[in-house]
Amino acid sequence: MAEAVALVELWRSGMVESRHRGHAVICDGTGAVLDAWGDPGAVIYPRSSVKMIQALPLVESGAADAAGLDDAELALACASHEGAPVHVTLVAAWLDRLGLSEADLLCGAQPSRDRAERRRMLLAGEAPSQLHNNCSGKHAGFLTLARHLGAGSDYNDPGHPVQRAIRAAFEAVTGQPSPCLGIDGCSAPNFATTMHGLARAMAVFANARPDAAEPRTRAAARLTGAMLAHPDLVAGEGRACTELMRAMDGRVAVKTGAEGVFVAILPDRRLGVAVKIEDGATRAAEAAIAGLLIRLGVLDPDHPATLRRLGGPIRNWRGIVTGEIRLAPGFG
Amino acid sequence: MAEAVALVELWRSGMVESRHRGHAVICDGTGAVLDAWGDPGAVIYPRSSVKMIQALPLVESGAADAAGLDDAELALACASHEGAPVHVTLVAAWLDRLGLSEADLLCGAQPSRDRAERRRMLLAGEAPSQLHNNCSGKHAGFLTLARHLGAGSDYNDPGHPVQRAIRAAFEAVTGQPSPCLGIDGCSAPNFATTMHGLARAMAVFANARPDAAEPRTRAAARLTGAMLAHPDLVAGEGRACTELMRAMDGRVAVKTGAEGVFVAILPDRRLGVAVKIEDGATRAAEAAIAGLLIRLGVLDPDHPATLRRLGGPIRNWRGIVTGEIRLAPGFG
Repeated sequence: MAEAVALVELWRSGMVESRHRGHAVICDGTGAVLDAWGDPGAVIYPRSSVKMIQALPLVESGAADAAGLDDAELALACASHEGAPVHVTLVAAWLDRLGLSEADLLCGAQPSRDRAERRRMLLAGEAPSQLHNNCSGKHAGFLTLARHLGAGSDYNDPGHPVQRAIRAAFEAVTGQPSPCLGIDGCSAPNFATTMHGLARAMAVFANARPDAAEPRTRAAARLTGAMLAHPDLVAGEGRACTELMRAMDGRVAVKTGAEGVFVAILPDRRLGVAVKIEDGATRAAEAAIAGLLIRLGVLDPDHPATLRRLGGPIRNWRGIVTGEIRLAPGFG
Repeated sequence: MAEAVALVELWRSGMVESRHRGHAVICDGTGAVLDAWGDPGAVIYPRSSVKMIQALPLVESGAADAAGLDDAELALACASHEGAPVHVTLVAAWLDRLGLSEADLLCGAQPSRDRAERRRMLLAGEAPSQLHNNCSGKHAGFLTLARHLGAGSDYNDPGHPVQRAIRAAFEAVTGQPSPCLGIDGCSAPNFATTMHGLARAMAVFANARPDAAEPRTRAAARLTGAMLAHPDLVAGEGRACTELMRAMDGRVAVKTGAEGVFVAILPDRRLGVAVKIEDGATRAAEAAIAGLLIRLGVLDPDHPATLRRLGGPIRNWRGIVTGEIRLAPGFG
């Protein structure tokens, strides 16, 4: 089994100050590895990078249609949103339409990551709610599916019909049994897979078309389309997912996951991409996925959204340039 | 030259989710390497971990005594403080006594990292000043020395007498020429050295006694004593430096540096310790230095301050335990 390899470097005044190692895999529609760095067999927790997989049963079961979910709501089901007013309002309305409320969520309260909203709440003395949790859309999806299935409210239990359906979909699109599961930051199960499995799953999404015969394939196409149509709902202003999707004009869906995971779905090229930074650093995952998207010809290396993650100047408290983030030699 | 080796692991639900590699060196008073992991010859930017070295010329020149600096002010000169009211007030009073002000600092404005102070400032509509910069004490020391030397106000210039004196002291205690310098977050020069050089410098501090003949040695003893006497000023409430120094009852001085650096000075054992996490992660540097201090018998593995960095439970938004940070096999 290969080791993680150097993917990203932080330079300061002409010297490498820090180095991030990791794994990266590009898969085609047959599930074959087109290109890989590090170990395609490395087992990882994909964390929030697989929210579009976790939303597959919601759509393929008919629950989404039965609840009248639109593309914005499906994008939120796939989102790690920043708890800005737009996200909170839409999730609250979705729950309300189902006759549910914030109290039915089991993701936990998380402070908003939207600066203006955090400031407003502080000044107003408002406490963060579970709606502000970056996973509240995913959990609204879980609740929607649970209700559709007539299942109980403990939807985070690995034995709950919602999680059993997610595991089945997850193992189908990754093409392998999940060796174990972890409890995620939002308390939902997070199924482990290999880097190859994660990239293969993204390739399944990239190759899915809305007119496919199989409900799961149609669901994958619909969820990718929802993400591409609503980059602002998948993350938020200033976030890498939102900015990079906009920079690629809605042709590529990307999604981050905690602990240095990033994935990309390229429908035009029918490719899936997965990155895991061994040390879990977000800055490196963002730089690495940007590097691969540049390599694949779908991201402009000089776009401001790119330069904020890779190659642009890093400035200190006085605005003096102190260094930059680069790809490691041999990567990208 | 050896590679960085695995030092710290993040576990989630029974599996390693992320792994941090790095270098660690323990040096004795002769400058010899007692123990090492990774590459003692690796060249790094020590960042804020060497503020006690950057304060040596302030003391050994007589500038500190001429300005009547007390131990609290010397601790602030060695500090990466969190911009709490205690830090801001003391640095402001120090500058005022010299007939200087916040406007003379060249570190840049940085928001306070003290939650209550940040909240107070937000509610009051106050902008952060250069006094809130974690390096404002170091810069007050630079200004004190510059004035004592009759030198100009551009004290961050590598050719300025203050920085020339710091470079000389730095190369003396690390025992080697600095191969290059980087511009730090506070705009001051940061001299590079090897892991061995950094650990050796900390051993120089650990072996310094207040009655030594050499002014630099006396200065080192005095600065270590100031840090040990004021753990709250070196960082702040909740910070690793402050909490770990308190947990060791003032017998060991520790100091963090950006991008995964941590050092320790053990006067009782006459040892110096240096850690650099290759990927720059603070969480891993804190865990690694805690692991080495446990190994050296000076830190209780079950102390709450330890468990917050190493071995204690990590909880998610609902308070559910999701994992923990451990030392990698073969380290610590």
